[in-house]
Amino acid sequence: MDVKKYLERRRFQVDRALDRWIVGRDEFPPGLHKAMRYSVFAGGKRLRPILVLAAAEAVGGKAAEALPVACALELIHTYSLIHDDLPAMDDDDLRRGRPTSHKVFGEAAAILAGDALLTEAFQLMARPDLMKNVPVRRRLEAIHLVAMSAGSQGMVGGQVMDMACEGAEIKPDILEYIHTHKTGALIGAAAAAGGIIGGGSPREVRALEEYGRKMGLGFQIVDDLLDVEGEENKMGKTVGKDRAKGKATYPALFGIEDSHRKAEGLIREATARLDSFDRRANPLREIARYILQRKN
Amino acid sequence: MDVKKYLERRRFQVDRALDRWIVGRDEFPPGLHKAMRYSVFAGGKRLRPILVLAAAEAVGGKAAEALPVACALELIHTYSLIHDDLPAMDDDDLRRGRPTSHKVFGEAAAILAGDALLTEAFQLMARPDLMKNVPVRRRLEAIHLVAMSAGSQGMVGGQVMDMACEGAEIKPDILEYIHTHKTGALIGAAAAAGGIIGGGSPREVRALEEYGRKMGLGFQIVDDLLDVEGEENKMGKTVGKDRAKGKATYPALFGIEDSHRKAEGLIREATARLDSFDRRANPLREIARYILQRKN
Repeated sequence: MDVKKYLERRRFQVDRALDRWIVGRDEFPPGLHKAMRYSVFAGGKRLRPILVLAAAEAVGGKAAEALPVACALELIHTYSLIHDDLPAMDDDDLRRGRPTSHKVFGEAAAILAGDALLTEAFQLMARPDLMKNVPVRRRLEAIHLVAMSAGSQGMVGGQVMDMACEGAEIKPDILEYIHTHKTGALIGAAAAAGGIIGGGSPREVRALEEYGRKMGLGFQIVDDLLDVEGEENKMGKTVGKDRAKGKATYPALFGIEDSHRKAEGLIREATARLDSFDRRANPLREIARYILQRKN
Repeated sequence: MDVKKYLERRRFQVDRALDRWIVGRDEFPPGLHKAMRYSVFAGGKRLRPILVLAAAEAVGGKAAEALPVACALELIHTYSLIHDDLPAMDDDDLRRGRPTSHKVFGEAAAILAGDALLTEAFQLMARPDLMKNVPVRRRLEAIHLVAMSAGSQGMVGGQVMDMACEGAEIKPDILEYIHTHKTGALIGAAAAAGGIIGGGSPREVRALEEYGRKMGLGFQIVDDLLDVEGEENKMGKTVGKDRAKGKATYPALFGIEDSHRKAEGLIREATARLDSFDRRANPLREIARYILQRKN
């Protein structure tokens, strides 16, 4: 299969759904919906929603039925980026080559746009007019899993530790905690939620979550490597900014070569979790390989 | 009935449930959970969760079964207070007589504690080990309603307009938009969600939502009046601060007497929505009356 074409097709599908389901930019209050859409349509890769769709298919479900959950994951990812970029947090001016939300709309609007996106994610997963063919119990289970992974013992917990450790000596296990929680948890939730909506068995859902968590950690290490090695224009953000901020990264802690090896190992482990799945899991396998080789 | 005793008993029940269901203060990362609990246990009146419980009983349901949804409403209310108090928003140092979250834990931690509380609210409503006797469809419906009311076209929308209008001339219809959304929407959602979980008919749920929205607006007007008239020690925050900040309020726009009349009218309208309910709705009726007469 051509993974690039697959990703492109899925990204298009996700973008269209997001555009349909997120409140229009002219709805009252207009400034808020404009800010929400500014960040949602900022050219993201849509990795998390694509994983939801691919995981739903991997267990024999229909991708289209998982689309609202897919979009919800992207909304949560987007809110986390807006809040991470705030002056009180990472204080970033650029994101994907464009001014960050608070630079365009002001700090208060950025905080509130993030709050609204997080809320909208749960609203979308619970909408009575969508996912009518998905058993209600599965939907509730997906909501619970996504909330767990995004909350204080998941993504937010990772961000808290990331902030707490800025500029400090950091131990490998803390760095792993940060990455597995800040990045891995939500990516794991994406794969698992797709599996739940698609009707996977508890064992399949667990395997998908582990696949996602491993890959999420690998994805983050590749991100750290790109920050050291990448070209500024490709990343759309300032290269080397992690070090400038005193952020601990895998390359800083283990060196570039060991980090490459670690990322490769994780992607191998991630795909190994799919060994009992048939060819319908091929997109998930290909995505893992692609993640490792990406250049931006 | 003795409404004060009723409120006290319910508040105790809610506090105990919150303590049981929110992540412990020593769970990793400890700073985050400490900050979350600091704001949740700051001596709130627990109006929203109590309304959930009273509404569930008003339609013949069991209060205990609605307890997770009740707590979720309080978590959402708490997150909104933390974010509203931030320097980029209302920049408040005191809340209920104690230093605000960002004053104690710093701005980043306060933003993240708010994010985590909002997420935890949805996690709680979807927990598989709770509300086992409540039909799953009702739970999903409650989640959807709560998210709608808390999001960009509900509470967050109200806060956005409140920020946008600070220091500006404000028209009565915009002031009403702010109050009905910032305060009324979540209080309406509390009453309606209780009705949904308790098994109320669509008509009953609608009546409960209108009861809550009317009462929420009345509650806000009383709040504005207390800000003008109240004694500092009772409110636990600086009296007159609305005017100092150039916030539009009912008393500022319509005068104190007309505002009192408006609040009374709203509470009357709110209880009128309960006319078709039997005596099981008495707590809701008494709470409405109590709200109007409260002195802090």
